[in-house]
Amino acid sequence: MAGEGDLDERSETQEAIMEATYSALQKCGYADLTIQAIADEFAKSKSLLYYHYDTKDDLLVDVLMDSLDRLSVEETVDASKPPQAQLETFLDNMLPATLDEDDRAFRVTIVELRAQAPMDEAYREQFARADRLVRNTLTEILDGGIETGDFRDIDVPYTVDLLLSLVEGAITRHLVTSEEATVDARDTVDRYLEANVYAG
Amino acid sequence: MAGEGDLDERSETQEAIMEATYSALQKCGYADLTIQAIADEFAKSKSLLYYHYDTKDDLLVDVLMDSLDRLSVEETVDASKPPQAQLETFLDNMLPATLDEDDRAFRVTIVELRAQAPMDEAYREQFARADRLVRNTLTEILDGGIETGDFRDIDVPYTVDLLLSLVEGAITRHLVTSEEATVDARDTVDRYLEANVYAG
Repeated sequence: MAGEGDLDERSETQEAIMEATYSALQKCGYADLTIQAIADEFAKSKSLLYYHYDTKDDLLVDVLMDSLDRLSVEETVDASKPPQAQLETFLDNMLPATLDEDDRAFRVTIVELRAQAPMDEAYREQFARADRLVRNTLTEILDGGIETGDFRDIDVPYTVDLLLSLVEGAITRHLVTSEEATVDARDTVDRYLEANVYAG
Repeated sequence: MAGEGDLDERSETQEAIMEATYSALQKCGYADLTIQAIADEFAKSKSLLYYHYDTKDDLLVDVLMDSLDRLSVEETVDASKPPQAQLETFLDNMLPATLDEDDRAFRVTIVELRAQAPMDEAYREQFARADRLVRNTLTEILDGGIETGDFRDIDVPYTVDLLLSLVEGAITRHLVTSEEATVDARDTVDRYLEANVYAG
């Protein structure tokens, strides 16, 4: 299995396995997912799947790691831009105002894998790692904005925790209650920032 | 199946089915749940399960409705108490500062069922209904507090949306990243209320 540090070295086969697993997950859902369903989406031979992964769960934890790396936005945020633009990029990634079909399918997969975490330590570790990464990125953005005076002199750990829970709750509430492509909640977050974070 | 209005009339058998399903869900998780696993937790005959429910999914949607009614806090909040006490009761239900084993198991079940909602309209309808109920309760509490002057003259729909997403995100982030019994996030919500909602 690919570890945290060797994502760049992930082979083409492993990439194809990831893609096949995403497709299968989006067709079947986690509850009905089988190795066969993944193999059906996979252009290469099924034995390759077993060569790379001992069990369906090993595979899914790796897919989860890959998913969370896609969601972790450290590389998306350009530190040379003004703090407010960085924060907007961060939020555009975490809580887009509209979800196209692929975005939505990807988020739904995350919600499904997330539901395994309370019972499964390997999943929980991946989500805890992703939470740390995102927290670090947001902390840097907020610290930077306070330094430049673009943001008020806020309590950073408190604001980071509030924003991450708010964003997480907003996207989940949207996915579990509605089919709409538009996520109204982004407006709520923006209003919070205007009222509490952005300077004058 | 029991409808929204006849919860009080739910028979003893149906209650026993609900309890058996909770136990089975907490043992197997949603992905591995079978009618047999529910029957194993059920003191009465398996045929009774089929008499009341055509499919496992019918049963689970009913369990979900029951779960969400347990979470919906309208009856817990005492409208004769001061607004701040009402809001604290509301939050104690939605985001308790500590989770005992039963609380945790119940929340984990909700997270699992929630993960089905994006793919399944019957689940989505139940979550949308629960969201409306909780939103109404919180709206009444906030309106009441503004009227008495205990709360600032806040924008109620905005604050309701922010608080519900914050609480939802906080409990989910806790469950998917940690095994701790203590939910730190409650402090974040309380600080938000001090800074933005409670008067003077």
